Amino acid sequence: MKITCEKNSLLKSINIVVKAVSTKTTMPILECILIDASTDEIKFTANDMELGIETKVEGTVQENGIIALEARLFSEIIRKLPDSEVTISSDSNFNTLITCEKAKFNIMGRDGEDFSCLPYVERDSCVSISQFTLKELIRQTIFSIAQNESNKMMTGELFEIDQDQLRVISLDGHRISIRKIQLKESYGEKKIIVPGKTLIEISKILSGETEDIVDIYFTENHIVFEFDQTVVVSRLIEGNYFRVDQMLSNDYNTKVTINKKELLDCIDRAMLMVKEGDRKPIILNIEDNTMELKIISQIGTMDEIIDIEMKGDNIKIAFNPKFLMDALRVIDEEKVNIYYMNPKAPCFIKDEGDSYIYLILPVNFIDVG
Amino acid sequence: MKITCEKNSLLKSINIVVKAVSTKTTMPILECILIDASTDEIKFTANDMELGIETKVEGTVQENGIIALEARLFSEIIRKLPDSEVTISSDSNFNTLITCEKAKFNIMGRDGEDFSCLPYVERDSCVSISQFTLKELIRQTIFSIAQNESNKMMTGELFEIDQDQLRVISLDGHRISIRKIQLKESYGEKKIIVPGKTLIEISKILSGETEDIVDIYFTENHIVFEFDQTVVVSRLIEGNYFRVDQMLSNDYNTKVTINKKELLDCIDRAMLMVKEGDRKPIILNIEDNTMELKIISQIGTMDEIIDIEMKGDNIKIAFNPKFLMDALRVIDEEKVNIYYMNPKAPCFIKDEGDSYIYLILPVNFIDVG
Repeated sequence: MKITCEKNSLLKSINIVVKAVSTKTTMPILECILIDASTDEIKFTANDMELGIETKVEGTVQENGIIALEARLFSEIIRKLPDSEVTISSDSNFNTLITCEKAKFNIMGRDGEDFSCLPYVERDSCVSISQFTLKELIRQTIFSIAQNESNKMMTGELFEIDQDQLRVISLDGHRISIRKIQLKESYGEKKIIVPGKTLIEISKILSGETEDIVDIYFTENHIVFEFDQTVVVSRLIEGNYFRVDQMLSNDYNTKVTINKKELLDCIDRAMLMVKEGDRKPIILNIEDNTMELKIISQIGTMDEIIDIEMKGDNIKIAFNPKFLMDALRVIDEEKVNIYYMNPKAPCFIKDEGDSYIYLILPVNFIDVG
Repeated sequence: MKITCEKNSLLKSINIVVKAVSTKTTMPILECILIDASTDEIKFTANDMELGIETKVEGTVQENGIIALEARLFSEIIRKLPDSEVTISSDSNFNTLITCEKAKFNIMGRDGEDFSCLPYVERDSCVSISQFTLKELIRQTIFSIAQNESNKMMTGELFEIDQDQLRVISLDGHRISIRKIQLKESYGEKKIIVPGKTLIEISKILSGETEDIVDIYFTENHIVFEFDQTVVVSRLIEGNYFRVDQMLSNDYNTKVTINKKELLDCIDRAMLMVKEGDRKPIILNIEDNTMELKIISQIGTMDEIIDIEMKGDNIKIAFNPKFLMDALRVIDEEKVNIYYMNPKAPCFIKDEGDSYIYLILPVNFIDVG
């Protein structure tokens, strides 16, 4: 195999596929990037058997062939080359020569035939949204997936299509995040659970531009994202997702409208009083158009009063401060509405049209006045 | 005690003194910053018993007193406050209240009387140089102090004044770095060994401006740096430093003039072939106005040829690539001169006036052609 590409095209393509390179594996081939120049096109592929990414690379094929190169080393070598034309060639023993100007690297590749190609996925109906929108949907929900694998379903997000509406939902047992968007067309009904890792990695390679489109295909077991020169294929998580709608409610006894940044900064400060691993709640005392926030710990106490607009009853309620911060951080509005029922019931942070809903369970607290 | 200061003045002063806060200690008082408002001036002090820093803080004293606050917590609290006026007050039980706008923090301080103040140091003759120059002297030599404490003297740098010349020297057994500058006045003869840690920390707080001056005082056991609103006092390392001059030589068989960036980039690339902890040498083959650089390792091989100007004999010699890079990185010139004697003798990277000299010992290598 022999190909010639500009350093920067190589680097761009490596940075895309490297997201699917396995980091914890005993199979060396999974730590590789496959260079496929078997036709007159150059393609890079990485595949950790759950997530696979393939991207086309600008360049010319001088001799057809394939080779698998250890991703970390390949990426480091390309990164440190001068900004110039790079030639990669390999022989039948997988000896690979990378040259650029006067620099010559000789490294051992692996047989490209041993590489697991991306699974073939039937592509019929496709949902098209902007890369910006997909990136935002992920950012605004991904923080509340479960971190540990004990409940596999909680490590993914539900993508639920109902005609021309797409809802993305994540939950971890303490909170639920829901983002809803309007699609341009109607697509029937579909529910799939996408692994959180897939969403985290894909959101790193999406452009974030509103005019760039990503096409999404679903099958029984896979989801495919197609955009720019890239195809991302991921397995889905099997099972029926939690029935979230029965946990939602529009009733409330107290509605608070508050400046988001003021609340966020205040909780951020208050968290200085909480040692890592400690579970001190932040106590909210909502009374007569003010919200007093207070944390008492071994380190000391912090309290602060924020002016708010409120409707309904006074209430005193406590939360894990991190959960409040996580939700507030991803909301773009300057003012947010928070709805409370009672100190034992979840609060809801949501906008008028329910385009986002963040449900957070309260925690018990000892009322020391 | 009660003081009022702007958040940003507090933060600036904390960031200066925090460099002398002990991180590894069983004495909690050494992890504190002392706030001294016993006169009508506010001073912050930190002291890890080897290095001490004191700085004046802009603000007003409402009630005289002193208090010691845990540095990390104090710094985090101030950092997260709004950009506004901050009041710090403490009572006789060392309860400390920090308020800013509507935020109130209550933390426990410690008795300021338990704090170890900076040692009193006699200040007679003082050497004045620009903060920029001191910062540069440190940057250009500090990398070759020894990392481990087995030879205490190697963990410091020699500051050697001979009339109107200041030489700063560091060495670690494999290499020597020397920087020489001309002083504005003549100061007799002085030799002191300053701990590397002191130099690293002080270079972080020097402004780096040529018009800002730092005054340096020496005594038997201490060095004092005075600049802006800040005083830094450090213990010295005792003993007679290595006699470096007898290791220097102006003889050479080969003189090479080379583009610094080209050489640096090439070694940087070559180091990709060296696993961390591995000690593969880089082999330099200097021949007919070219320098071939080569590393052979289990990972693969890298070689590259650089055009050079040369005078004298061809030579083949090997070095620890990191040592070459460390020296090249701190040289500002576009072209450097490197002098070689033979494959067993050190090379010298230096300029015409010896304003810098980097001596590096070669390593043995197996010549595989």
